[in-house]
Amino acid sequence: MPLSFGTRLRSAMDERGPLCVGIDPHASLLSSWGLSDDIAGLERFSRTVVEALADTVAVFKPQAAFFERFGSRGIAVLEQTVADARAAGTLVVMDAKRGDIGSTMAAYAETFLREDSPLFSDALTVSPYLGYGSLAPAVELARESGAGLFVLALTSNPEGAEVQRAVREDGRTIGATMLAHLAEENAGATPMGSFGAVVGATLGDLSSFDLDINGPLLAPGIGAQGAEAADLPRVFGTAVRNVVPNVSRGVLRHGPDAGALRRAAARFADEIRVAVAA
Amino acid sequence: MPLSFGTRLRSAMDERGPLCVGIDPHASLLSSWGLSDDIAGLERFSRTVVEALADTVAVFKPQAAFFERFGSRGIAVLEQTVADARAAGTLVVMDAKRGDIGSTMAAYAETFLREDSPLFSDALTVSPYLGYGSLAPAVELARESGAGLFVLALTSNPEGAEVQRAVREDGRTIGATMLAHLAEENAGATPMGSFGAVVGATLGDLSSFDLDINGPLLAPGIGAQGAEAADLPRVFGTAVRNVVPNVSRGVLRHGPDAGALRRAAARFADEIRVAVAA
Repeated sequence: MPLSFGTRLRSAMDERGPLCVGIDPHASLLSSWGLSDDIAGLERFSRTVVEALADTVAVFKPQAAFFERFGSRGIAVLEQTVADARAAGTLVVMDAKRGDIGSTMAAYAETFLREDSPLFSDALTVSPYLGYGSLAPAVELARESGAGLFVLALTSNPEGAEVQRAVREDGRTIGATMLAHLAEENAGATPMGSFGAVVGATLGDLSSFDLDINGPLLAPGIGAQGAEAADLPRVFGTAVRNVVPNVSRGVLRHGPDAGALRRAAARFADEIRVAVAA
Repeated sequence: MPLSFGTRLRSAMDERGPLCVGIDPHASLLSSWGLSDDIAGLERFSRTVVEALADTVAVFKPQAAFFERFGSRGIAVLEQTVADARAAGTLVVMDAKRGDIGSTMAAYAETFLREDSPLFSDALTVSPYLGYGSLAPAVELARESGAGLFVLALTSNPEGAEVQRAVREDGRTIGATMLAHLAEENAGATPMGSFGAVVGATLGDLSSFDLDINGPLLAPGIGAQGAEAADLPRVFGTAVRNVVPNVSRGVLRHGPDAGALRRAAARFADEIRVAVAA
């Protein structure tokens, strides 16, 4: 039985701090790095990020869309990127936001959470528009393979409120409902469960939500989207110790120089350490 | 300027009837066709479906997950399948249920809706958990490239109600909200707009929802999931003329014999024609 994602993530956070760095090779970043907007540029970008940061950062979050836009050849680069990052000892959260039902959800789970898959990742972001219950095949496979999930709950973009703040018959919002499902999934797990939520760092005071899900909270929005490390305790309250803050452009814009990438990541890591300890 | 997806779809529905056949190469189907659960089996399965049905069926709906589970090599088969189907004159709705924000949503749109992409499809299914507004980059690109979208609104699975029937401050459910956004998107388009909704055929009476969005309604659930063609008028009311009923296993289980696939598709097409005309 492999160690659970929650266990491995907690160790990584304790050792390296909780910073997650996105691997987001979009066209404007490739261009600012002096790279071509093609497979060669994609490969160079991804390899550079992994080589520069794999021994210091807890988690990488490759954004599947920026690889998919090159079709099968882009996915081949994604496979290599995931394998390189995992081989170097960094955890990989695949940001693919998959969601479907039944055998289709099972196929997405196999794609990213089955150990012999070419895209096997430590965890996967998933979208619950089809209901939390639709994610069950991914939950099951993650338990077997020692992987994890991050379920979209309260996202960092303002348009998200339209769905996520809508209210169910029991008076709870959709976002709160997802958090409650995850708390149930993680009940009794130590040091924490493997089933996390995506909760934007830009959302201001979240004290009306119960964020104590005994699992990780992936928090995008720091840097380019306007949140700062110093905001984390105010947004997340006591759950801040389970927060995995994601920075993408804030680090990546310092490339392609490896030293500059490392310094930018270290700066965010320090700010986060100070904020969380405060 | 290319003809819009709504225009092309209406023509295809008028000429061939509205049936959409899924291309869902999951392991159990490959096995029942006597094929290996690998790239060779995947390729053979997909080619057989396209060759058997491309000249009679209006729309194919490949399910991306069943290709992704083989990684980049599976995506290469998907590229070939989409290209073959479109070359044969069938419309392709890529069932990938993508959803994200900003530049990431734009990258998904480029992947499936940009004409020079290896996965260019006539339309894409998208998931609005991040709010309808998050889909804007896909709406924009679809308008430019003559492609379409199908936004998840009211899905066929029972777990979907948890999210889709939650209520917003204005008293509308999430599902109704998505339908209203789409009606606005399609306003004034003739013969119909390019921005459709996914609405399950299994949902029973939907008369409390305004399904008149002046765009297509992709309706999964017929066959294996328990709905029948005869149910369509009761479920969809006057919007039934815009319904694109999807059948996957109900047709595919008759393979690999091309004649049997064609007969099964023709049977569903006839039942649908009778039901919609009634």
